[in-house]
Amino acid sequence: MAKKIIIIGGSAAGPKAAARARRLDQRADITLIQRGPDLSMASCGYPYYVGGVFDDRRMLLSTPTGVVRDPKFFMNAKGITALTGTEAAAIDRKRRVVSCTNLADGSANELSYDKLILATGATPKMPPVPGRDLEGITTLQSMNDADYLRKIRDERVIKKAVIIGGGLIGIETCEALELAGIEITVIEALPQLLTFLDPQLAKIVENHIRGRRANVITGNALAEFLGRDGKLTGVKLVNGTELPCELAVVAVGVKPDAALAAAAGLTVGETGGIAVDEFLKTSDPDIYAAGDCIETVNRITGKKAHAPYGDLANLQGRVAGENAACGDSVRFPGTIQTGICKVFDFSAGITGLSETAARAAGFTDIETVVIAGPDKPGFMNGKLLITKMTVNRADGRLLGLQCVGAGDVGRQIASGALAVMGKLAVTDLVNADLPYAPPFSLAIDNFIAAAHAMENKLKGRMKGIGAAEVKSLAEKMNGVFLLDVRGPDEYEAVRLGIGEVLIPLGALRKRVGELPADKGATIICFCTISLRGWEAAAFLASQGYTDVRVMEGGIAAWPYPREK
Amino acid sequence: MAKKIIIIGGSAAGPKAAARARRLDQRADITLIQRGPDLSMASCGYPYYVGGVFDDRRMLLSTPTGVVRDPKFFMNAKGITALTGTEAAAIDRKRRVVSCTNLADGSANELSYDKLILATGATPKMPPVPGRDLEGITTLQSMNDADYLRKIRDERVIKKAVIIGGGLIGIETCEALELAGIEITVIEALPQLLTFLDPQLAKIVENHIRGRRANVITGNALAEFLGRDGKLTGVKLVNGTELPCELAVVAVGVKPDAALAAAAGLTVGETGGIAVDEFLKTSDPDIYAAGDCIETVNRITGKKAHAPYGDLANLQGRVAGENAACGDSVRFPGTIQTGICKVFDFSAGITGLSETAARAAGFTDIETVVIAGPDKPGFMNGKLLITKMTVNRADGRLLGLQCVGAGDVGRQIASGALAVMGKLAVTDLVNADLPYAPPFSLAIDNFIAAAHAMENKLKGRMKGIGAAEVKSLAEKMNGVFLLDVRGPDEYEAVRLGIGEVLIPLGALRKRVGELPADKGATIICFCTISLRGWEAAAFLASQGYTDVRVMEGGIAAWPYPREK
Repeated sequence: MAKKIIIIGGSAAGPKAAARARRLDQRADITLIQRGPDLSMASCGYPYYVGGVFDDRRMLLSTPTGVVRDPKFFMNAKGITALTGTEAAAIDRKRRVVSCTNLADGSANELSYDKLILATGATPKMPPVPGRDLEGITTLQSMNDADYLRKIRDERVIKKAVIIGGGLIGIETCEALELAGIEITVIEALPQLLTFLDPQLAKIVENHIRGRRANVITGNALAEFLGRDGKLTGVKLVNGTELPCELAVVAVGVKPDAALAAAAGLTVGETGGIAVDEFLKTSDPDIYAAGDCIETVNRITGKKAHAPYGDLANLQGRVAGENAACGDSVRFPGTIQTGICKVFDFSAGITGLSETAARAAGFTDIETVVIAGPDKPGFMNGKLLITKMTVNRADGRLLGLQCVGAGDVGRQIASGALAVMGKLAVTDLVNADLPYAPPFSLAIDNFIAAAHAMENKLKGRMKGIGAAEVKSLAEKMNGVFLLDVRGPDEYEAVRLGIGEVLIPLGALRKRVGELPADKGATIICFCTISLRGWEAAAFLASQGYTDVRVMEGGIAAWPYPREK
Repeated sequence: MAKKIIIIGGSAAGPKAAARARRLDQRADITLIQRGPDLSMASCGYPYYVGGVFDDRRMLLSTPTGVVRDPKFFMNAKGITALTGTEAAAIDRKRRVVSCTNLADGSANELSYDKLILATGATPKMPPVPGRDLEGITTLQSMNDADYLRKIRDERVIKKAVIIGGGLIGIETCEALELAGIEITVIEALPQLLTFLDPQLAKIVENHIRGRRANVITGNALAEFLGRDGKLTGVKLVNGTELPCELAVVAVGVKPDAALAAAAGLTVGETGGIAVDEFLKTSDPDIYAAGDCIETVNRITGKKAHAPYGDLANLQGRVAGENAACGDSVRFPGTIQTGICKVFDFSAGITGLSETAARAAGFTDIETVVIAGPDKPGFMNGKLLITKMTVNRADGRLLGLQCVGAGDVGRQIASGALAVMGKLAVTDLVNADLPYAPPFSLAIDNFIAAAHAMENKLKGRMKGIGAAEVKSLAEKMNGVFLLDVRGPDEYEAVRLGIGEVLIPLGALRKRVGELPADKGATIICFCTISLRGWEAAAFLASQGYTDVRVMEGGIAAWPYPREK
């Protein structure tokens, strides 16, 4: 008897699970149930379609050779029955039957299964504020949404839009709509954009976005959508600010779509996702779940996590499909919550734990370092990267890596991700053998340079200080000595203007007399990226100064306004 | 008493060692001895200067802020005495003295040391053939060489050049001179370019180079440089071919410059490099060595290796400098022989062991897989990557990763390098959590896709076959059934023409009757990248065919001529 496998959900995890099950069991009877009209949508590509990076919407729905992944394709190429426009209304676990409704004609029928895979995805959250039903409010979560926003782009009528939420999708949508010539304001209730980053790096991304003609409001939540004649005319924030706009894109996150599972009595986890074991099996041994609807585990902290990422959905679909077809044979190890996004000429990424996340997870003895530097040599037109590394002090193990900037962030985060997964420690990273040639990286790649700085800190050779603390000390005017060791030309072009004294590194050995007489004074050294700052600090320590610190990442990582 | 540290060699490892020693010991008396006029040359950047990627030669000799790293800079910024134009003639280990000659005036003096660091680099090999002294023969190893070749580029007089040697430097030089408008022929004595790659991937790179108007001759060695009036007019190869040319760049590798060390009685290893321990200490406890002059260890095989890479030289310099300053405290773990190069619009990289290298190192039970695919989605203008993964079958551990193509090879190789260093196995890689968004990668990144294919092979679910074997079987016309499962349009545009039969995947379930009646027949399935090929193979196996194979990497990885 052919095994009957039903998969509910046709976006990412579902089709992948179906395809994997088919490859491993050519005789199984495989049915994919999808509420919407489309299958295997490349939903992470929506912002790029909206922004006009490409014009052919079928590219979001097609194989690389241009074949639309419709029910006919699934049947012919994979022998999978795909029922689109079909809602899975209920699961009868005793009878192992899914009740379905054909949304076109309202007809109902029942499909029986031996193994069921839930890939019901996630639903955009909507802020509970008045005016939510006004015309002009959307999310960017479905093909419909993408079509709606692309039409707005093409019509060039709407002039002002707000984006509610400064996370990954919000930021990508910001870029898309700005490219469409729309004046954008991103509104984030929390004090920073991209909350997966630590504040300093998030602020640097925010500065970049502002520099590209998009407005950003942080620390202020949406209070109300304003409208007239059923159409959006603006938004009102909690502090009373009113912003006129004709379009609002809501991107405040998603919640797992676990209603069907919950109604069937399956266990739902603390994060709201369907609870699964390492085989992605739910509390019912005949039902698996994969993708944005599940609760997975953070591999570093061991804590439950909801990780709605397209890549993980595909990997989980593959695991669920294999286990449904072959019995429990492969495990999904969880996530390290690697994420990346592009916004204009900048990229921002993270893998593992930020400092904030590490502390929240109970890591009490951690060390962090921020460095800045180009991704490639200057003569190869290298672009800046700002990197923050988090390690567990006791064993030096890498807990996380964040990186933002105009340079090759993807490589840095991929390197960091594999180092985290490999449980590598700083001692392993300082002599990593990475691919080097000038078109690709510096001789000492940023990732290694961050490990070098971290090693100096862990061994007590370098005392770092973050930009936030420097700013706070400078504002208190409490006698801290701020030492800029760049050259005069550099100082003329760019400077912080927070009371710093300029003594170029090359003159420092001769001009050491200009430093405070009190050898216990706090001296903070910096330069553009603080490599010279670190050199200066090492020298000053040798002169008997006992509290010399390096401002990590230098001026490049300074996220606050500068004098020039 | 200040510790006296002398470093011999001022290119990469030497200055890094000196700087590191200074940072950790501000009181030490540090002297850097350099034979040539320049210090800290970015020698890996020479090809890009020659090719005109940038015009200001000082960029090769300057800090990122444009300060030339001359003796004055070293003294002022770092408190290091740099003696340029000075040859270290001999080391008297008993007296701990280095005899130096000032090359400008011939004067000699002696410098005493407590710790000595040798960073004497490597010397280009020169083929032992007649005519070596003709004008027009050079290497690309020194600033002088770079100046010479850059002048040739700028003058635009020379029309034809040959490059002797198809390794990293040869290939980079090929690109540089082609950009200079010179007709290039690369001559490689071995049967393939880039011998660190397995033949199939090397051939794909070769095809790319040929496509860019450079000629390539493999399997034919240089016999003689031909000349008239002291000037190069051509080269003669072993098979008698004569190629007229006005310029020959010799890039047949380098040999460690260990003469000074050997003369001082230090142990020199089997590879010709100075023998060092994990602290980079030579056979004399007061002498360290770093960079291209040493023999290091391959971390995977445990075998001695000469690894003359700029990044390793810097890392080794840092280790030697620290140990010379602080006593033996940090270890250099060796190399996994990661390398990468760019050639026109292609990149080619490797980390760890190729199949060839793994077998040579005695790994008898390995598995390999070749895959092809874009680095990013088609709608983001993804570019092709061809990847080969080598694993140790017993434990599934990743031994090496090779990648070539127009896409983002750097990220792939960096990922592979960290996976090799982290001793990750295929089971770890199949669910790796890597940074995904459409501007950066596919939802299932190439590296993970390679691991998926490898897992299918290791579990016996996929039988692969390489292009070379397919070609050989097809030529023998021995009844193998070659099944191209692409669409008719694709077949019209591009096809192998080796006797294959076209049955599109979507039609295969209906047209299975067109396959051989003999269920034991060898059927080889493929498509553009062989994902559909693998789907077809899984189906055919279910139809009772017992010898179904997938041509790995598909047409994209086919390195031989095609019908169209």
